[in-house]
Parts: sequence; structure tokens; C-alpha cells
Amino acid sequence: MTATQPSAAWHIQQRPAAMTRRYDFASYSETRTFLDQLAALSERTGYHPNLNFARNHVSVSINADGETLGDVEYTFAAEADHLAQR
Amino acid sequence: MTATQPSAAWHIQQRPAAMTRRYDFASYSETRTFLDQLAALSERTGYHPNLNFARNHVSVSINADGETLGDVEYTFAAEADHLAQR
Repeated sequence: MTATQPSAAWHIQQRPAAMTRRYDFASYSETRTFLDQLAALSERTGYHPNLNFARNHVSVSINADGETLGDVEYTFAAEADHLAQR
Repeated sequence: MTATQPSAAWHIQQRPAAMTRRYDFASYSETRTFLDQLAALSERTGYHPNLNFARNHVSVSINADGETLGDVEYTFAAEADHLAQR
């Protein structure tokens, strides 16, 4: 089953269409694991969000490039949430 | 030999002390390789800069946290330059 609903932790704006969320981690090792999982998700979906990270956090920014947010963006966000919960 | 002089491509500011540089890549695969090399550099040096990336670029932000920029920061920057040249 694929997650399709992003959690309420995402900040969503409509003009320009974008959604962002910050994930915090207790260690760099956990941060790296999440980044590797996001990379695999990007390779699988062909969608590459903007990622900002340092030792203990990752911020994911999904920009719709002038279009509206749709299934591709929401599904990526929901799957990122799912990965972060593991 | 360890590189110790960052290239002129870095933007350096003194108050607050920080240095940033954007590296552009032709493919996501090259972007990922550089990110993996930066991760290895961070694990080796214990220094974790703020990294922002998407499919074809990586921006490295080194903040001195109220201190001045010094050998640790400049060396990290120089080694990042070195890795990007490979």
C-alpha cells in the first residue's frame, strides 16, 4: 500500500504552490538514513524535491513550478512522512 | 596532501561569519556522488555544514556560529572544492 495523504506537519501554500516540512532527528546517522531513503524514493518516482539538511534535520521543499500541487507532490510528501516514522 | 585554500567561488561574509558555495552538476547521479563524498568528509572531520540540494545542484553553507571562520571551515571548503573537481 502506498501512502497518499501527507501529514498535517506540512506547511502548504498555494501561490506559488509549494509544500515544506522539517524532520528532526536525534543523530546524524538517522539523518543520513532518511536522506538515503529519500534518494531511493526520488529514483523510484523521478521526483526530486529541494532538500536542506544539516546534522540533525532535513527540510523538504516541494515546489510545483507554476502548476498546482497534485497527486505526484502529495504522494511524495506522504511517502516521506512514512519513511520518517520507521 | 590536504587542500586548505577554498576556491574563489565561495562567497564569504564576516558578520555573521559564514561561507557559501553552489556546485552545479549535469545529472542527479553526479549530485548524489558529491553528496556521498561530502557525507564521508563530514564523518571524517566531524564537521557538518548545512547542505541544500535538488537534482542538479548542491549548495554548501558553512556557518561559524558566532565565531570567526578558521582553519576547520576553510579546510572543509577546500576539500569540498577538491571533491567536486574529480
